[in-house]
Amino acid sequence: MARAIRAHNMAERLSIMDISSEARGVLRTLDVADDITDEYKDIITTADLVVLATPPGIMKQIGSDVVSHMKSGATLTDVASIKLDIAKHFTAFMRDDIALIPGHPIAGTENSGPAAGFAELFQDRWCILTPDDHVNSQALEKLQSLWEGIGSQVAIMDAARHDVVLATTSHVPHLIAYTLVGTAMDMETVTRNDVVKYSAGGFRDFTRIAASDPQMWRDVFLQNKDGVLEVVDRFIEDLSALKRAIRWDDGDTLMEHFSKTRDIRRHIVDAGQDTDKPDFGRES
Amino acid sequence: MARAIRAHNMAERLSIMDISSEARGVLRTLDVADDITDEYKDIITTADLVVLATPPGIMKQIGSDVVSHMKSGATLTDVASIKLDIAKHFTAFMRDDIALIPGHPIAGTENSGPAAGFAELFQDRWCILTPDDHVNSQALEKLQSLWEGIGSQVAIMDAARHDVVLATTSHVPHLIAYTLVGTAMDMETVTRNDVVKYSAGGFRDFTRIAASDPQMWRDVFLQNKDGVLEVVDRFIEDLSALKRAIRWDDGDTLMEHFSKTRDIRRHIVDAGQDTDKPDFGRES
Repeated sequence: MARAIRAHNMAERLSIMDISSEARGVLRTLDVADDITDEYKDIITTADLVVLATPPGIMKQIGSDVVSHMKSGATLTDVASIKLDIAKHFTAFMRDDIALIPGHPIAGTENSGPAAGFAELFQDRWCILTPDDHVNSQALEKLQSLWEGIGSQVAIMDAARHDVVLATTSHVPHLIAYTLVGTAMDMETVTRNDVVKYSAGGFRDFTRIAASDPQMWRDVFLQNKDGVLEVVDRFIEDLSALKRAIRWDDGDTLMEHFSKTRDIRRHIVDAGQDTDKPDFGRES
Repeated sequence: MARAIRAHNMAERLSIMDISSEARGVLRTLDVADDITDEYKDIITTADLVVLATPPGIMKQIGSDVVSHMKSGATLTDVASIKLDIAKHFTAFMRDDIALIPGHPIAGTENSGPAAGFAELFQDRWCILTPDDHVNSQALEKLQSLWEGIGSQVAIMDAARHDVVLATTSHVPHLIAYTLVGTAMDMETVTRNDVVKYSAGGFRDFTRIAASDPQMWRDVFLQNKDGVLEVVDRFIEDLSALKRAIRWDDGDTLMEHFSKTRDIRRHIVDAGQDTDKPDFGRES
């Protein structure tokens, strides 16, 4: 996000706090911010916009302290993959003179850390904002302009709806990918070497997703528990039905199911959501 | 395969039979073969090598007739994703003067038809051959040279082992992707439009896999039933364990599981199996 803001010249002053000295070293090499510090109090007292970009669990731990140090009239947002649980948590200590506008850019790769970023990450991707009904409309417009300024399209929806949509399009796909890669690694009859050599048959796409940050995803699953469990249960029901069709040689049921899923791919390609572009900055 | 053979000049004469007049039209435009016909008897009677590239179900229907028309001393191979069931089927009518060497290149995209091919598809990918113990060693060497000549690495293993390895690295990943895309399409609370817009969160990788040819995959699941059902059952067990960890807020179990799957990705990237290259010829 810092790279994108720099590239599009969207901030007068950009300051980053990171607890990792390694990450701060990389950030200094990249020259993507005016200030790089290990103490958020150094930077949030004067900031017009504070962006929390930690795992969701940490966000809840530091939220109250962050809010207490922000200046009057400022806006607080975040980029977490879950929204309802965090919004509920922040309600307890939010100040009337600060605009809370939770956010979630639907963009990213399996790589984490400052070196893995690239300024074009948000280009043509959607960013979801989930403000409550009483949000300061000027603050909302300003944050929306920032996301649009770095290439995103912005959608506004309520936090509960965000969580069920993302459970379907992101959280459960990640849980399934983590599971399948683990299942493959535990097969006695298939070696690690087999899995690597023959991964081009479909498996490698799952390993890409299952290489995402473990701590972040642990927090996502625990904090969107209801949404994730509902979609997982439906998925297991549907998988069991296809399993039954295979066991009983019911080719018609399989054919019908496989034919209907092909269409949605075309819509995703048409909507330009099929790949992260450009390719540089990603693993080579 | 025809494009690759042409590009590497690996055949004196290359003839293609396709029942689809549309496919034959595309093949003529592409100019990838010396002969293009709708009748396999026209070409297999003089061929040194016959490559069957139909869905597995069709392969079993035409196998006996194909074998009866081949010339003495020729080799018969295929490119199907399952091996044991087909090998068993062919045993009944194989001739001693023909070398049967089943094959499976672990390469491909979600797109099908002659227009979706590209000569570099097999570059640095593995091709598995599953001959039986009595195979003519000269014929095997010749077929191996062909695959190596178009860029592949060749692995030789028995058909049963192929089927359980591929159930893990290809068949079950496809079944899971088809299932999840279907589950998402059936959610009452998530619209088709939501799924398309927010697919960059992980879902789009599943739609890519679930856009593969339905008829081919129906045949694969029915003909590798034992391998597929075993891996699916283990997968459901593992998913249920993670589901339970989420329900009971057991973050340690999730963290442990998610951390161990990250490593395999690095091995796949190191082995050059992480992506199909080059990008041209694929959907844009």
